[in-house]
Amino acid sequence: MQFSKLSGSHLNHLSLIVGAPFVFTDSEIMRTYSRDETEDLEFFPEAVVKPRTPGEISEILSLCNKERIPVTPRGAGTGLSGGALPVCGGVLLSMERFNKIIEIDERNLQSTVEPGVITEVFQNAVKEKGLFYPPDPASKGSCFIGGNIAENAGGPKAVKYGVTRDYVLNLEAVLPTGEIIWTGANVLKNSTGYNLTHLLIGSEGTLGIITKAVVKLIPHPAYDYLMFVPFASPEDACNAVSAIFRGGITPSACEFIERDAFDYAFRYLGEEPLKIEKETGAVLILEVDGNHPDSLLRDCERAAKIMEEYRCGEILFADSSEQKEKIWKVRKCMGLAVKGTTIYKEEDTVVPRALLPELLKRVKEIGKKYGFQSVCYGHAGDGNLHVNIVKGDTSDYDWQHKLPSGITEIFELVVQLGGTISGEHGIGWVQKPYFRIAIDETRMRIMKEIKMTFDPNNILNPGKIFNLPLS
Amino acid sequence: MQFSKLSGSHLNHLSLIVGAPFVFTDSEIMRTYSRDETEDLEFFPEAVVKPRTPGEISEILSLCNKERIPVTPRGAGTGLSGGALPVCGGVLLSMERFNKIIEIDERNLQSTVEPGVITEVFQNAVKEKGLFYPPDPASKGSCFIGGNIAENAGGPKAVKYGVTRDYVLNLEAVLPTGEIIWTGANVLKNSTGYNLTHLLIGSEGTLGIITKAVVKLIPHPAYDYLMFVPFASPEDACNAVSAIFRGGITPSACEFIERDAFDYAFRYLGEEPLKIEKETGAVLILEVDGNHPDSLLRDCERAAKIMEEYRCGEILFADSSEQKEKIWKVRKCMGLAVKGTTIYKEEDTVVPRALLPELLKRVKEIGKKYGFQSVCYGHAGDGNLHVNIVKGDTSDYDWQHKLPSGITEIFELVVQLGGTISGEHGIGWVQKPYFRIAIDETRMRIMKEIKMTFDPNNILNPGKIFNLPLS
Repeated sequence: MQFSKLSGSHLNHLSLIVGAPFVFTDSEIMRTYSRDETEDLEFFPEAVVKPRTPGEISEILSLCNKERIPVTPRGAGTGLSGGALPVCGGVLLSMERFNKIIEIDERNLQSTVEPGVITEVFQNAVKEKGLFYPPDPASKGSCFIGGNIAENAGGPKAVKYGVTRDYVLNLEAVLPTGEIIWTGANVLKNSTGYNLTHLLIGSEGTLGIITKAVVKLIPHPAYDYLMFVPFASPEDACNAVSAIFRGGITPSACEFIERDAFDYAFRYLGEEPLKIEKETGAVLILEVDGNHPDSLLRDCERAAKIMEEYRCGEILFADSSEQKEKIWKVRKCMGLAVKGTTIYKEEDTVVPRALLPELLKRVKEIGKKYGFQSVCYGHAGDGNLHVNIVKGDTSDYDWQHKLPSGITEIFELVVQLGGTISGEHGIGWVQKPYFRIAIDETRMRIMKEIKMTFDPNNILNPGKIFNLPLS
Repeated sequence: MQFSKLSGSHLNHLSLIVGAPFVFTDSEIMRTYSRDETEDLEFFPEAVVKPRTPGEISEILSLCNKERIPVTPRGAGTGLSGGALPVCGGVLLSMERFNKIIEIDERNLQSTVEPGVITEVFQNAVKEKGLFYPPDPASKGSCFIGGNIAENAGGPKAVKYGVTRDYVLNLEAVLPTGEIIWTGANVLKNSTGYNLTHLLIGSEGTLGIITKAVVKLIPHPAYDYLMFVPFASPEDACNAVSAIFRGGITPSACEFIERDAFDYAFRYLGEEPLKIEKETGAVLILEVDGNHPDSLLRDCERAAKIMEEYRCGEILFADSSEQKEKIWKVRKCMGLAVKGTTIYKEEDTVVPRALLPELLKRVKEIGKKYGFQSVCYGHAGDGNLHVNIVKGDTSDYDWQHKLPSGITEIFELVVQLGGTISGEHGIGWVQKPYFRIAIDETRMRIMKEIKMTFDPNNILNPGKIFNLPLS
């Protein structure tokens, strides 16, 4: 990696492409775009550029490719692996003006959307037409759909409905060479050559800049019920999860939350909207949805019976939208709550679902060994556990020098269990040192060669996922 | 492309790798492996090799890579685009000895399976444990799961459950260089670098040879109901399909069949297990499945009401397994029935669901213009229409010289409608001349460069999807 030096003539050229009001260099704005939601990292771009059309992006990338200027694409900056951090300086290319829902095609249950649309805004727009776009990362109120695609974001509903990948049919993207392509077709099935759509999804803005997405919609389920279920033992809670699936029930959300996470959330919110008993060690949030309330109630009853076998406490059955919102509000603020309280590192481990109790137990053991505490919560139905390692009383020295060994041990464990080091956050900048734990040399070589095919001069989001020399 | 010349010393080396009884060169066996289910094409391999382990395949590929010998991997040979045809001679590598279900992991709802397991055998094995592997191509009684992955096969259930791609979590594959990799991890979500699993799925045996697959299973639905619904007008039938989806019903199968297809099927079966009225122009087969029979019956009623608005005839409601099997037997034999009757070409068009009536109408117009007849059926819920062009009275001259223009026009139409030229059969050998209609120059370049990354000497299934020089 090599840092860029943007010249005055480069800035003039960029202004010619997008218009002078959309090229920024003043330090306050550089500061704003120097961070995303990843820990407390900060990297300053040399300029922020806000294009409006694929054609403008094509011109920007052509220029930067010729001049070897790093370009870091950015959605809403809510990422948790540092994917939008301009670690090599250069141009920060903000997609915020790509904010139109171009079409909601009710006949085909598809929508064409620009990448700068906020996920929840999009969800609400299609819901007005009775339709459903399920991917719902915790940041859905502020994140962009383009960033979700770049990182292959998940969220609570993934357990029933799948992740972002499962809803993307076709992408328009500008390649680092300036070429504009559509990756696929607007269809539900496609066996026409190598699947470039799936290659771009989750590629963290390193292969191309997404400028339009055609996504699949489904009919919005008419009913959903939520259960808030305390357990004394976190292991029992985890074990109940796979029993529920084996019982033939597919919940539309199945979240696991350690007790400590509630303490962080309540402090952050300044209120205790939910009552957590002293003996509660963990909570499951279970949602079912569908069109037939009687069937859903029967599923709830069966799930409750199964959870009782795992010694759950008294189940709170939420059927009013106020109650449901209260529960989701607490769950969704947890990342920010931990971040707001202490220095921390969030890991995005994922293992086969039934191995979650094993993972949880051993994460705590590793913590003890290396002297750190962790707060865990996540999408138990997917085997996706967010391990928030909090600095707390850990000394600066230990945090800097011992923690990486602890994280390495956690990731080695995850891979041993058949899992991997990121379920939905991506590798980006912060997981790059650990990437080799999950990926062997051959796969690494193939990925790098694919990168070079798309981006021969390594100008697009350089320094992410793996290192390549800038030429 | 360049044809190989396998020497005696190559054959000796292959015998050393897999054992002499598993290397074949006699002409009867070469004939057997010279064909798949694609039209009446025939290409002879120079040797058929039947390895048993990834290590053996690694040695075979290392040898062939060094000696520049083409290797064509083959599953059960049921493909419909010629993917398993050894068009450059060389080694035909049959996967038939990779026929073990290694593990059915009931705790995690996953299975590890070898690629030579017959899809239906696998489905039955997991069903015995109450589990469900949905992908069900018409050939499921004979096709291999590895071939399904290589072509990204679909089938009737794709409309609710997705295609093969949606069930593959992780693949072990041998690359043309002899390297053995796992492409991903055994997890439901994965944001750890570029998704090589999705790159291999649907790559038609051109990037690597799949030696193990970890697939996702789901609980088997307890009930399913089938409706057999005649319409006078094929357009009405197609229009009813998207109305059903817009009505919030997601059928577990939604098949469209033109009247003529029944005539072929009945002749092929030698019986008329279903009664088709004289005025019937097309039939929809609609299935719903789930765990709550009362909800399913309500869905059937609502679907029936919607179809009545589109002037359907009397609905046959199949609730006994005999009746259901009878219906599926007729539907699933249609490809073979057409193939057994006349020279034909099967196209695998796919468009956004609501554009199916438009596609059907214009396929018939194009047929009239070029003087050919077609029999259409397919997965209407996915917008995936199999257009069987039958030779019938068409002259040999017209069949050879005019038909390609007609097919070109159909494919141009499909792309214009936002669709593509293969939904589930692949490009393989027979659609290669038309591939450029769906794929622009930039995408073609990227795909070829990806191929060169995996297979620098173009030894693995050369001549498929696109042409590359053999070096």
